[in-house]
Amino acid sequence: MNLDTLTPQLQQYVGEKNYTRCRDLITQLPHPDAAELLDATEPEDALIILMALERGKRSAIFRYIPPQRQAEIARRMKQTDLIQLFEHMQHDERADLFNQLSDTEQAFLLPLLDPEERDDIRRLAGYPEDTIGSIMTSVFVALHEDQTVAQALDAIRQEAKDLETVYQSYVIDAQRRLIGTLSLRELILADPATRIGDIMTRDVIHSEVMAPRIEASRKIARYDLFSLPVIDEDGKMVGIVTHDDALDVSEEASTEDQLRLGGVGRLTTSLKDAGIGALYRMRVGWLVLLVFGNIFSGMGIAHFEDLIASTVALVFFLPLLIDSGGNAGSQSSTLMVRALATGDVRMQDWGRMLGKEFLVAILLGLSMAAAVSVIGVVRAGYEIAFVVALTMVVLTVVGSIIGVLLPLALTKLKLDPASASAPLITSICDGVGVIIYFSIASSFLTDVMG
Amino acid sequence: MNLDTLTPQLQQYVGEKNYTRCRDLITQLPHPDAAELLDATEPEDALIILMALERGKRSAIFRYIPPQRQAEIARRMKQTDLIQLFEHMQHDERADLFNQLSDTEQAFLLPLLDPEERDDIRRLAGYPEDTIGSIMTSVFVALHEDQTVAQALDAIRQEAKDLETVYQSYVIDAQRRLIGTLSLRELILADPATRIGDIMTRDVIHSEVMAPRIEASRKIARYDLFSLPVIDEDGKMVGIVTHDDALDVSEEASTEDQLRLGGVGRLTTSLKDAGIGALYRMRVGWLVLLVFGNIFSGMGIAHFEDLIASTVALVFFLPLLIDSGGNAGSQSSTLMVRALATGDVRMQDWGRMLGKEFLVAILLGLSMAAAVSVIGVVRAGYEIAFVVALTMVVLTVVGSIIGVLLPLALTKLKLDPASASAPLITSICDGVGVIIYFSIASSFLTDVMG
Repeated sequence: MNLDTLTPQLQQYVGEKNYTRCRDLITQLPHPDAAELLDATEPEDALIILMALERGKRSAIFRYIPPQRQAEIARRMKQTDLIQLFEHMQHDERADLFNQLSDTEQAFLLPLLDPEERDDIRRLAGYPEDTIGSIMTSVFVALHEDQTVAQALDAIRQEAKDLETVYQSYVIDAQRRLIGTLSLRELILADPATRIGDIMTRDVIHSEVMAPRIEASRKIARYDLFSLPVIDEDGKMVGIVTHDDALDVSEEASTEDQLRLGGVGRLTTSLKDAGIGALYRMRVGWLVLLVFGNIFSGMGIAHFEDLIASTVALVFFLPLLIDSGGNAGSQSSTLMVRALATGDVRMQDWGRMLGKEFLVAILLGLSMAAAVSVIGVVRAGYEIAFVVALTMVVLTVVGSIIGVLLPLALTKLKLDPASASAPLITSICDGVGVIIYFSIASSFLTDVMG
Repeated sequence: MNLDTLTPQLQQYVGEKNYTRCRDLITQLPHPDAAELLDATEPEDALIILMALERGKRSAIFRYIPPQRQAEIARRMKQTDLIQLFEHMQHDERADLFNQLSDTEQAFLLPLLDPEERDDIRRLAGYPEDTIGSIMTSVFVALHEDQTVAQALDAIRQEAKDLETVYQSYVIDAQRRLIGTLSLRELILADPATRIGDIMTRDVIHSEVMAPRIEASRKIARYDLFSLPVIDEDGKMVGIVTHDDALDVSEEASTEDQLRLGGVGRLTTSLKDAGIGALYRMRVGWLVLLVFGNIFSGMGIAHFEDLIASTVALVFFLPLLIDSGGNAGSQSSTLMVRALATGDVRMQDWGRMLGKEFLVAILLGLSMAAAVSVIGVVRAGYEIAFVVALTMVVLTVVGSIIGVLLPLALTKLKLDPASASAPLITSICDGVGVIIYFSIASSFLTDVMG
């Protein structure tokens, strides 16, 4: 089944208002695929098709629709349907949907829900966007250390339908503090009469609710967890982050880093759906800023106007030289930013990284100098070729060092190292490059000038 | 517990040859942290410490050590210890380790193993590096449709200790073809007398063993799977990929894309451990290639030598203009490459993406032209300011279009779109930029020249 051929087919059925066929088409698809098809139809039609599905299928598909779109559909629902939907959604996803609604809609919805559900939504929806609280779910298997394995399994069976995951249980004490954990695998392998407290794993890896969400994703990846328990400032266990949410967070973080490295701001929707205005805003800031930043290279050039007028051949190599410095710098900043993001390199490694970069940059500079010398001699003679080759080595080293130090400096200042973007590094290297190039040229070409 | 303070502590104990203290320190840590500490010690010492651990702990920690390092430790082991280690490792991880050994070592090891294990290692180790086969494990819960739930649970309990995951079972027929799946959750909730075939989910999402491994990671993320079943060319089920492996693959793919976008080649070790030679090789190719690529901008400049000599003020704006085009281009290629990688944008969307890009680029170009006009008028008068502003708009549009089209063209040619790196786009835009700038200048500044 190919989504690209199914999309026009669904559109056709919708056009014919043949909602039975729409439903049959949607029903046979895996839930995420069904959601993608519905996301591509108008919210009014998506609602009609969703309401034609049986209840379990409906919420199973609805959860894969992006929250912004969910809100457009939800606000067209009948009140009773909306309440039922909210009561059947996973707690973390329902909080995300709630956050998409306007203040008026939120105020309208809350009094209709059970007090318990209402508190849960309000609490989860209240965590700031980049925290673990914003991606955790509040429902998990909570056991007590005096239960037996058989009692624990019974409890899990009874609660299973409301739980996002049953594969990892958490043992809490009377104050709801996390004291141990057990996997379902351990439970089904254990003797049913065993006391939970005797077989649970203590010293459970956990995170705090206000920690950055990428921390949850890192811990889940590093320790191969199914879910990560989350505690609040009083040490009480308040929820879990599941492995599938961790994968999403990790992908989103990579996207953010990559865009920032390319000198692009944050995009809240998909690129395909983004409007002209949003695309303009995410890009214009850096571009205009860099125009002003480039005044420095212009000022450098103005300073050497006489030299340039007397030796126009120098201009021939200008883009090549300043580009090469920028290219080497972009390479090193890309390497550093990723290594810092994955935890491969830490702040205290800076001395070692800088030393290696220095040696590598000299080798790279010599290789590029050799390449440019050939062109230099042919186009402009030995004297200028020497100036160009020497400049190439110096610029490559300077560019590379900037590329290593800038992400480290940004990290030190508690800023995002990925802001050391290719465009920023290029512009810095341009300014520095112009000055170095013409300074070297004016020292060595005095006889030409005189 | 902080790894940064524990590393020197372990080094101290190792220096004192106090392996009991080493063992006690290692034992209290989570396994991945213990592995990281061991990875930082000499292989001889790591081996002694590992052998001082009890057997279960030993293999639990060993699996988190990077395969290259595992091999260095393994080849120092006594024959019996090595065989025991191989027999207790997870099948996918043991194949990775096997691939790190030399041909001689492999030939020495294989005859010592059970025939069944030997075949398994040979098969898994034989899959090419980027395929799903190279990350899958060959052991999984296989059920038959005529079993009851109670029989299935008994079978799982008996096999559990050899299994990487017990949470998803796969139902196969007599020809080992995949016909259904069931989660452990469904099994423990079902009536023990139910026939498996009556409650299993049919139409199981799966992949083929020779498909690219990123496909496994995508499917696991998209469909929120615990594990993805893998079939061979005959339709027989041969293994599974687990969710934790998918997370690793997804991180690695993001790293590769990001480095390529920064104009850096593939790095097989960590950046921190990479040698000068490896770092040089991963960067020199692009840099030298781009030096030769930049000859075009140089040739462009040479062509306009008279214009430049007569109006040196034009050089003032050269880096600024060609940079701005390159920056806009890097932004659009970054956006496109990531959107293609995450599946947000597909090939058939190219027309729509190009249309949007064109409009956004005009807006961006006008904004940057406004910024540069201010500088232009102050530094060089109205005439040159006009030439510079017009060039800015044209270059921004051209750069952006190149940034969108190049990743799409690379995809079309079945090459990696991430090769449309910032350095490449910058160099292309430089060459194009020089020609456009001086062409516009020579059309509008004829009176200056004359």
